[in-house]
Amino acid sequence: MLIPFVALLLAQAPPPTAAEVVEKAPASDWRALDPENTLYLELAAGRVIVELAPEMAPRHVASIKALAREGFFDGLSIYRVQENYVAQGGDADEKRQAGRAKLKAEFALEKSAGVEFTRLADEDGYAPETGWVRGFAAARTSPGGPAWLVHCPGAFAMPRDEDPDSGTTDFYVVIGHAPRHLDRNTTVFGRVVQGIERLSTLPRGTGRLGFYEKPEERHPIRRARVAADLPEAERVALQLMRTDSASFAALVEARRNRREAWFHAQAGHVEVCNVPVPIREKR
Amino acid sequence: MLIPFVALLLAQAPPPTAAEVVEKAPASDWRALDPENTLYLELAAGRVIVELAPEMAPRHVASIKALAREGFFDGLSIYRVQENYVAQGGDADEKRQAGRAKLKAEFALEKSAGVEFTRLADEDGYAPETGWVRGFAAARTSPGGPAWLVHCPGAFAMPRDEDPDSGTTDFYVVIGHAPRHLDRNTTVFGRVVQGIERLSTLPRGTGRLGFYEKPEERHPIRRARVAADLPEAERVALQLMRTDSASFAALVEARRNRREAWFHAQAGHVEVCNVPVPIREKR
Repeated sequence: MLIPFVALLLAQAPPPTAAEVVEKAPASDWRALDPENTLYLELAAGRVIVELAPEMAPRHVASIKALAREGFFDGLSIYRVQENYVAQGGDADEKRQAGRAKLKAEFALEKSAGVEFTRLADEDGYAPETGWVRGFAAARTSPGGPAWLVHCPGAFAMPRDEDPDSGTTDFYVVIGHAPRHLDRNTTVFGRVVQGIERLSTLPRGTGRLGFYEKPEERHPIRRARVAADLPEAERVALQLMRTDSASFAALVEARRNRREAWFHAQAGHVEVCNVPVPIREKR
Repeated sequence: MLIPFVALLLAQAPPPTAAEVVEKAPASDWRALDPENTLYLELAAGRVIVELAPEMAPRHVASIKALAREGFFDGLSIYRVQENYVAQGGDADEKRQAGRAKLKAEFALEKSAGVEFTRLADEDGYAPETGWVRGFAAARTSPGGPAWLVHCPGAFAMPRDEDPDSGTTDFYVVIGHAPRHLDRNTTVFGRVVQGIERLSTLPRGTGRLGFYEKPEERHPIRRARVAADLPEAERVALQLMRTDSASFAALVEARRNRREAWFHAQAGHVEVCNVPVPIREKR
C-alpha cells in the first residue's frame, strides 16, 4: 500500500513559490527574444531593451524599426518624466519629425481570432478579460473579439495629440502604477524587458505633465537600434518565460496566493499587471 | 419658455474634469494636515512629507513619533530601493535598534464601526470593499467589519521578518505598481503626501530585493522630525482634499470616466490606487 501513501504525500506537497517555478521551468517553457523585434535604446544611463509587438500593432512596429534603422533617434532625448506615470522620449523639438506621415492608430485589434491569448481567470475591473498575448499583458472583450495591449509598468506606447491618428515618432514608457485608463486611448506596441530603471530613476520634470523645462535637462538617447542589426557580440541574449506554458500558469497561481513563509494572508487574487513575465539571460 | 431651455443646457453641461473639480472645490472640501501627525524625512535629496494614520495603526504612529523625537533616524539611511516596488529606510545595520521592543502588528482594525470610510463603488479584486479613511486608501470586509490601509503608491509601512510582530523602527514606501498582495501582511501606518520623487528616483540596489550592496551606496537620512516640533516657518502648510467631500466624489467620477477632450475611450471603472488625493499649499 505504499503507492497511495506516496500519492497522498505528493498531493499534499505545498504548491511552489514563484522562485521555485522559475527555477524548475523546463527549457521548453522559455523562448528567446526575436532580434528582429527587439529595440535597444542606448541612453546616456545605459541600455533599455524593448520587445516589440508586431502582431498587435504592425504599423507602429514597422515605423519605429525603420526610424531606428535610419538613425532617427540618435542624439534625441528623453524629454518628459512624470512621477508615477511615464517617461517619454523622441523628438522634443518636433523638428526632425517635420513632414513625416502620421501613424494611423492601432489602439486595438478589431478581431483576435488566431491570436494566442492566455487568459487570466481573475476578474478585472477595466476589461471583460485580461491575460497575455505572447508575453504582452493584454485584454479582450471576448474570445475572438477586439483585443489590445494594456498599460502595465513597462508598457511602450505612442504619445499623441487629441487626434487619435496623430502619433508620429515618439514613445512613452509606463514607470508607475498601471494607468489603465489609457488603454485603448493610445497604441501600445511593445514593452521594456530590461533596463527600465534607467528611465524610472531619471529626474522628474518640473514642467506641466513632467516635461523638462530646459533643454539641458533632457536625458540623451545616444542611439536606437534593432537588435538584429547589431553584431551578435553586442546583443544581450534574453529568454522570456512563455506565457502559454504550464510553468507560467503555476507562476500566476504562486503570485495569486503567495506561498513563501513570510506571507500570513493570501490575496486569493491577482491582476495582469502584478505578474511580471520572468526573464533571464540565455542558458 | 426660457427657463426649461436653460435647464436643458445645464443638464447637458459636460461633467467636470479632474482639474476642474480641484479648481472649483470650496474651502470646506479641503483640510489641513495635522502637524502632530505629519513626519518630515529630511533626506540628502530633500524633504519627504508623510501623513501618519493614528486611527488605523496607533502603536506604529506613536512609535515613529517617539523615535523621530529622540533623533533616532538622524544619520541613518535609505538602504534598499527595489524597482517597481519599495524604498526602505532606517537602521540598516540594526545596531541602533538593538534591545528595542518589537511592535505588535496592526495589519487591520478588527472592527471599523465609527471609522469614517468613504466607499468606492467600483469592484476591487483584492478586497470586498475599498475606499478612503480620511484620505488614506483603505479596504474593509463590510461596514463595521475589519478594515485596513492598502498598498497604493506612497503607502508608508513597517518592514518585518517572518514573525508578524517583528517590526521595530524602520519603514518602507511603495514606489511602484500597487503591491496589493502585501495588504494585511504588514502594517501600513501612513502615506507620502509630498516629495516621493526623492525616493522613487534613487538608484536601485543591485543586491537581492534591491538592497544596496555597499554602505556607501545608502542614501542619507539627515533628520526625521514631527512637523509640530518645528517652528512654523520651517513647516509646509499643506491641504488635502477631504475624501468625504462632494468634490472628492466628483473627482472619483472624473477619474472613472475621463472627460478631457484627449480621451476617446472611457474606462468606466477606477480603482482606489488610481485616484490620488489632491494636495495643495495652504491658501
